[in-house]
Amino acid sequence: MLVNVRTVRIEWGDCDPMGIIFYPRYFAFFDACTTALIERALGMGKHDYLKTYGVTGHPVVKNHARFIIPTRFGDEVDIESAPTRVGRSSMDVRHRLAKNGMLAVEGSETRVWVQGHAACGGMKSAPMPPELVERLLQG
Amino acid sequence: MLVNVRTVRIEWGDCDPMGIIFYPRYFAFFDACTTALIERALGMGKHDYLKTYGVTGHPVVKNHARFIIPTRFGDEVDIESAPTRVGRSSMDVRHRLAKNGMLAVEGSETRVWVQGHAACGGMKSAPMPPELVERLLQG
Amino acid sequence: MLVNVRTVRIEWGDCDPMGIIFYPRYFAFFDACTTALIERALGMGKHDYLKTYGVTGHPVVKNHARFIIPTRFGDEVDIESAPTRVGRSSMDVRHRLAKNGMLAVEGSETRVWVQGHAACGGMKSAPMPPELVERLLQG
Amino acid sequence: MLVNVRTVRIEWGDCDPMGIIFYPRYFAFFDACTTALIERALGMGKHDYLKTYGVTGHPVVKNHARFIIPTRFGDEVDIESAPTRVGRSSMDVRHRLAKNGMLAVEGSETRVWVQGHAACGGMKSAPMPPELVERLLQG
Repeated sequence: MLVNVRTVRIEWGDCDPMGIIFYPRYFAFFDACTTALIERALGMGKHDYLKTYGVTGHPVVKNHARFIIPTRFGDEVDIESAPTRVGRSSMDVRHRLAKNGMLAVEGSETRVWVQGHAACGGMKSAPMPPELVERLLQG
Repeated sequence: MLVNVRTVRIEWGDCDPMGIIFYPRYFAFFDACTTALIERALGMGKHDYLKTYGVTGHPVVKNHARFIIPTRFGDEVDIESAPTRVGRSSMDVRHRLAKNGMLAVEGSETRVWVQGHAACGGMKSAPMPPELVERLLQG
Repeated sequence: MLVNVRTVRIEWGDCDPMGIIFYPRYFAFFDACTTALIERALGMGKHDYLKTYGVTGHPVVKNHARFIIPTRFGDEVDIESAPTRVGRSSMDVRHRLAKNGMLAVEGSETRVWVQGHAACGGMKSAPMPPELVERLLQG
Repeated sequence: MLVNVRTVRIEWGDCDPMGIIFYPRYFAFFDACTTALIERALGMGKHDYLKTYGVTGHPVVKNHARFIIPTRFGDEVDIESAPTRVGRSSMDVRHRLAKNGMLAVEGSETRVWVQGHAACGGMKSAPMPPELVERLLQG
């Protein structure tokens, strides 16, 4: 499977009055990591791949996460993202966020490749491009 | 079990370029809903209950969610929150977010009642106040 | 001039490690308040007014704010929003956020009514609908 | 004056249904840039400088910004931050955000160096450390 790693710095504004990250921010990081994974697989930016394949996005339909070690502002963390299942129009991605080399957060999500807009008559799932499937599986 | 319901309006700034909510925002809503549930159980605001019981917060250690129906800006949604397990120093809370009376998102989280700061020598779990446990269980 | 007031509760997740609101959150509140002002003026939600008038949005091109009294989680604040200038395709809106009846934040912004998408060949300003101008001016 | 530059990638989750950045996100970026500027001036991270100088933070009391060129997800932007005034307990910082070498956003903010917590009896301004003042002025 393809693996992508990003380094993220936790900022003051990501943290809550306890001084640790406000956990919804992890999901914003994970979202950017999944985009980076797909961009790497396809060799183009999200604007381009959405246009090229005529899709509007790849929303999350299910996710779960475990928060093992708290992170706080100033921490630099490494997020390793990889698919764990690649289907016809959906895939599972696992994110492992490490702080000083130790697993701090583990998250998984299921994403669906979709066409159309919620605002105009609805979204529907679409098959993932074969080259994306291939590259995700090959690593 | 105690149940609390809040109505939230999805705003333009909560939404992504697909026009639907950027899903990490749901967890910000759920966080506020859990606070509201505890405030209701204890009959005081979060500032007061943290001070009264000498705790620093109740971070999430585990969560999962299913996103069933997309929501978009302008939608008013109802979030029903209730404990599904109340332990000695941790509890599980389930949030059911409905749009026009239909279940749109379902999320669950495990929270731990903690003392201390991550920044100064670490956090440790603490027993939940008996009156909180009692009120959460009674409903 | 038309005036609209909204009550907002500052949440834990809106606050930083100092325990006060992370100030970018004020601008998210102000954005929702400007939308509410326009919705009130036109008598329809944002989805509908964007579609009805063939516009894509009303982005901010300039803003400023003063933060006078800090707010913290649990605070309920009232935000009074009103236009201070209504032009052909742009307008100025002033937001006055009060805590316990005292002015805590004052912000002003200039918004332009636009058509088109940044992603597809650019956005351009468009005249504001006459009925919007009229209602904003009348109050 | 000291100048610091950071490169930031605008992410999908930073953008609104128009496909451009939701402008409050710029202020979150600017906040991180001011922290980076101070960290560079003092040669230590924020956790350390808050503790070393016995302060709780440096909140913004006033700001303004102009949004000249829209940015969208996938854009990499450079933010150049520099003080424009350094007082006894407050300073002004200017941020210039460039996209492809062209000025896209310009923002200014006034920050006050503070002690104490809003939650426990109030915050008060404190003199900035002489070494910070010196380094900011020297560049």
